[in-house]
Amino acid sequence: MTEEVIELPEPDAESKALVEKMLSGDRRALARLMTLIESRPPGIYKIMAQVSARMRGAPRLGITGPPGAGKSTLIDQLIREWRSRGHTVGAVAVDPSSPFSGGAVLGDRVRMQEHALDQGVFIRSLGSRGSQGGLSRATMEMGCLLDAFGMDRIMIETVGVGQTELDIIGIADTTIVVLVPEAGDTVQTLKAGLMEIGDLFVINKADRDGADQLSVEVRSMLEMHHREDGWEVPVLMAQARNNVGIKELADKVEEHRVFLMDKPRVGPFRQDYLKRWLVELLLAELGERIRGPQQEQVSQVFLQVEEGEMDPYSAAARILASPEIIKSMLRLSDGP
Amino acid sequence: MTEEVIELPEPDAESKALVEKMLSGDRRALARLMTLIESRPPGIYKIMAQVSARMRGAPRLGITGPPGAGKSTLIDQLIREWRSRGHTVGAVAVDPSSPFSGGAVLGDRVRMQEHALDQGVFIRSLGSRGSQGGLSRATMEMGCLLDAFGMDRIMIETVGVGQTELDIIGIADTTIVVLVPEAGDTVQTLKAGLMEIGDLFVINKADRDGADQLSVEVRSMLEMHHREDGWEVPVLMAQARNNVGIKELADKVEEHRVFLMDKPRVGPFRQDYLKRWLVELLLAELGERIRGPQQEQVSQVFLQVEEGEMDPYSAAARILASPEIIKSMLRLSDGP
Repeated sequence: MTEEVIELPEPDAESKALVEKMLSGDRRALARLMTLIESRPPGIYKIMAQVSARMRGAPRLGITGPPGAGKSTLIDQLIREWRSRGHTVGAVAVDPSSPFSGGAVLGDRVRMQEHALDQGVFIRSLGSRGSQGGLSRATMEMGCLLDAFGMDRIMIETVGVGQTELDIIGIADTTIVVLVPEAGDTVQTLKAGLMEIGDLFVINKADRDGADQLSVEVRSMLEMHHREDGWEVPVLMAQARNNVGIKELADKVEEHRVFLMDKPRVGPFRQDYLKRWLVELLLAELGERIRGPQQEQVSQVFLQVEEGEMDPYSAAARILASPEIIKSMLRLSDGP
Repeated sequence: MTEEVIELPEPDAESKALVEKMLSGDRRALARLMTLIESRPPGIYKIMAQVSARMRGAPRLGITGPPGAGKSTLIDQLIREWRSRGHTVGAVAVDPSSPFSGGAVLGDRVRMQEHALDQGVFIRSLGSRGSQGGLSRATMEMGCLLDAFGMDRIMIETVGVGQTELDIIGIADTTIVVLVPEAGDTVQTLKAGLMEIGDLFVINKADRDGADQLSVEVRSMLEMHHREDGWEVPVLMAQARNNVGIKELADKVEEHRVFLMDKPRVGPFRQDYLKRWLVELLLAELGERIRGPQQEQVSQVFLQVEEGEMDPYSAAARILASPEIIKSMLRLSDGP
């Protein structure tokens, strides 16, 4: 049997030119490429392969925590700090309430716009568009673009309140959990899983009542968690708005980066993550084929489900029972 | 060509007996079946098909809002209210910081345990285990079980702060957004997408400063959103902890249920949701096949990715370029 090969679509000439321009350091091309990638054009695999080849493995810093913890202000200050140390910085905000995505009060927004004038900074926000999986994929891809573009440090902001923070683990090398002194809820949030993912904890708005108490609580919870990698998780105090504690935080982040250096590959280069990433890409493509136009046999089953005549489980069982139907559904059939 | 048929695995005898027992009203069987379903046994399709056949379409109420808004307390009170009206109630808490999942302070937990003695109430919590997709699927399935078990009202609690709330839309017929008067963040949260999904808004802890102000803000934001279905979204005040405003809330929820009656099928019976659900089930199965043991050709590509010798995009492109490789990967090949 000769092996049939489907050529995956090439990016169009315009996209190719955009990638070249981006890789040569054109900021507008970077912005346009991000928009292009988000729209998931047919040539995306080849575009991202080209981008991947140029990635340098810039450290990725995840910043997560409940809404209102001041994550964006912290990022804003960290950008300043890194710039003063001579690093270029790219940031992706996945928090739809982030000032980066226009969800903030005017003062914050104005402050952020200062960075727009700095050639060494590039900030991109991802709204609440698309599904969770889609957001996670998009975040990862924006990070890859910023890396290939040549940014020295990459920051990713997500809202972490239970489920959502799970995604950041695979994407970041170093994860900062930002907390604020507030009644009751904090301990709950910690229990919700943030405890396990933080490489650094920051008590922000540390001039508020209860900051010391919170710090003690976090430390005592950390003591109950054994870190296998031997990293000692610091709990830092900060007042991002007043630029207090930022230098110390940046130092600790760098310390963690150095700590990771003699460890197995991390973040986007971790073995398990790379495989998961490949599986996700494959499933995304198969999903598109399934959702696309279907021949009689499959579309009949879909229709029965939509009409409530068959439950989704029975329908799935019926489709999965036949390799021929699966092949037809995934457009893998041999003949017409 | 004769059509090959793979028989999907039958549930084992024990699972079958469990389903029968559950459907006959055995609460312990319900609890054990939930645990079984969460473990995704091979017979799950047939189990869920059997469960689906017995679903009565009990109204599903989604409760979402930021952490600390008092969602669990509100659910606790709504359970009391519905019980006093003679309804049985099932609840699924997807919030890992929920008292239902043990994340709360002791007082809350004790209060919730009262319901454990009530035969007309069944509460299940889902922790932060598994992925987002996995949680959404598990939540849906717990709801189906509670429905088939015969519960009159089903409640689903999720943390909604941007992305996570997206899942609840497909699962609930009626969605309550719970907010509390607090500085600044609320307007951001609203912008983050909660505005679109709420059928009812509840300002909880309404005795706090700023409750009236928040109510005005929510109302004015609602005015900017046109609801195509004609439902007028109420903004209610409540103090869940003091049982204030609960009756009014329950009345409004019932009003929305009646409002939906002459509308096209909603919630889990919505056409688009049913199809999406089927696609998810299919992709879950295909994903398991991809992650399973692979023959030489595919496992070689996976290995190259894990070793960092090939980027995931190039690998996906290589696999997707060949129907034969896809078939082998999904165990759809005709022969050895």
